[in-house]
Amino acid sequence: MQAIQDMFTLHPSAAPPSSAVRDCLAACLECAFACTACADACLAEAAVGNLRRCIRRNADCADLCEVLGRALSRQTELDWALLRAEANACALACEACAGECERHASMHEHCRVCALACRECAKHCRRLLEQTPPSQ
Amino acid sequence: MQAIQDMFTLHPSAAPPSSAVRDCLAACLECAFACTACADACLAEAAVGNLRRCIRRNADCADLCEVLGRALSRQTELDWALLRAEANACALACEACAGECERHASMHEHCRVCALACRECAKHCRRLLEQTPPSQ
Amino acid sequence: MQAIQDMFTLHPSAAPPSSAVRDCLAACLECAFACTACADACLAEAAVGNLRRCIRRNADCADLCEVLGRALSRQTELDWALLRAEANACALACEACAGECERHASMHEHCRVCALACRECAKHCRRLLEQTPPSQ
Amino acid sequence: MQAIQDMFTLHPSAAPPSSAVRDCLAACLECAFACTACADACLAEAAVGNLRRCIRRNADCADLCEVLGRALSRQTELDWALLRAEANACALACEACAGECERHASMHEHCRVCALACRECAKHCRRLLEQTPPSQ
Repeated sequence: MQAIQDMFTLHPSAAPPSSAVRDCLAACLECAFACTACADACLAEAAVGNLRRCIRRNADCADLCEVLGRALSRQTELDWALLRAEANACALACEACAGECERHASMHEHCRVCALACRECAKHCRRLLEQTPPSQ
Repeated sequence: MQAIQDMFTLHPSAAPPSSAVRDCLAACLECAFACTACADACLAEAAVGNLRRCIRRNADCADLCEVLGRALSRQTELDWALLRAEANACALACEACAGECERHASMHEHCRVCALACRECAKHCRRLLEQTPPSQ
Repeated sequence: MQAIQDMFTLHPSAAPPSSAVRDCLAACLECAFACTACADACLAEAAVGNLRRCIRRNADCADLCEVLGRALSRQTELDWALLRAEANACALACEACAGECERHASMHEHCRVCALACRECAKHCRRLLEQTPPSQ
Repeated sequence: MQAIQDMFTLHPSAAPPSSAVRDCLAACLECAFACTACADACLAEAAVGNLRRCIRRNADCADLCEVLGRALSRQTELDWALLRAEANACALACEACAGECERHASMHEHCRVCALACRECAKHCRRLLEQTPPSQ
């Protein structure tokens, strides 16, 4: 998304966010979509009765990705301790959803694609946590 | 976003959504981000007292774009009458936000970029409304 | 919710919102919860395969109620034309969800309770539309 | 909200959620509203330039309360480790928002009311964390 780069550069704050923030934000937006779409695809499957856990993990993950995405879209008066807690919760949600989707990946291709988006987003959440020390 | 094309193709429903749906979804995700970021940038401006209306239009527009984006991410048991009402509300929100942002575009570059995202999203909402007849 | 009355009274705007706004807001918050909980209860039912439409209507309705609830929580620089479009979309979502839930109400008590919350919220959305003329 | 008690009792799951879950959910819904309304009231204040941090804390807190509220509304295939991470992030958001609002409480009554809602919600998040052991 070109808009991410543009909006971050044009913000009146002193310095634009790091590439870790930008990449995590992009991953959150993509993962939130993938999880909403995967839950919907699971609901349409004949075997929906076997996909309850997947649908729940999708819902949790979409919610967390949207909220972390919104937090990363804002630079004014950022609370790093809170951002870290959000990134931690989002990483857990992504990993739990990826783990469940991977169990169905051979049967449901949408679960395979969703798992990839979740793993990617979890990776960027973890990277963000590594690069923002607790003391910041 | 590659995930949009992939997830739409892999959904168990009979036929993938039209390109009008796909384009509108992508525009919603980009516009939701731009509006959240623009509200935050406005809040950081020295002249925040002159940007109250802009911040409110941003908040409304981000909310509507997120909700329409989620609706367009789902194909199962779609209610076209409701989708049309959502697309109509989202188009209004985008046009109102674009109109306000354009008033500040020469002073605040983030408003200029945000207005572009809003105009693009409004265009795709209107196109979606044209291509989905009320009787559908 | 006591907070609704308190926050509306303490807002620096000239006049507090009408009781139509307050009642619609309270109904939105209750209906959004009921729909999220009903979708989850449907997902846990043995007959989940027959409840796909109900789960989709629940998701749409929860989304619209949350967004209208947020719009009604804000008084600054309100855009009445947009609020009307949102209230219209929310009324449609509530009525569609109520209609679907009522079909399962004798079998699933959570659908009966959810339908009541949806009918109540739709009523308050319609009342709000009656009391806010298009020309406002 | 009567709907919370009703929907929890009527869910097909084996046992209804504890009172800690119910109380935390109700507190989340009230706090999310209070924070959205407080941000809007701050935006309308003449001294909005001094309330940037408050508006940011409000936004973060409303987002986290909404997401935790949605998670607590669902009982199917609950992931307790994730719920704990969400409750922890929400508690931090509530405490940060309360702390900031309390600084303005003598000048802005809406900040005083919002701080009370945040403290109440933080208390219920902490109680939930105490009652759901990490090993669950």
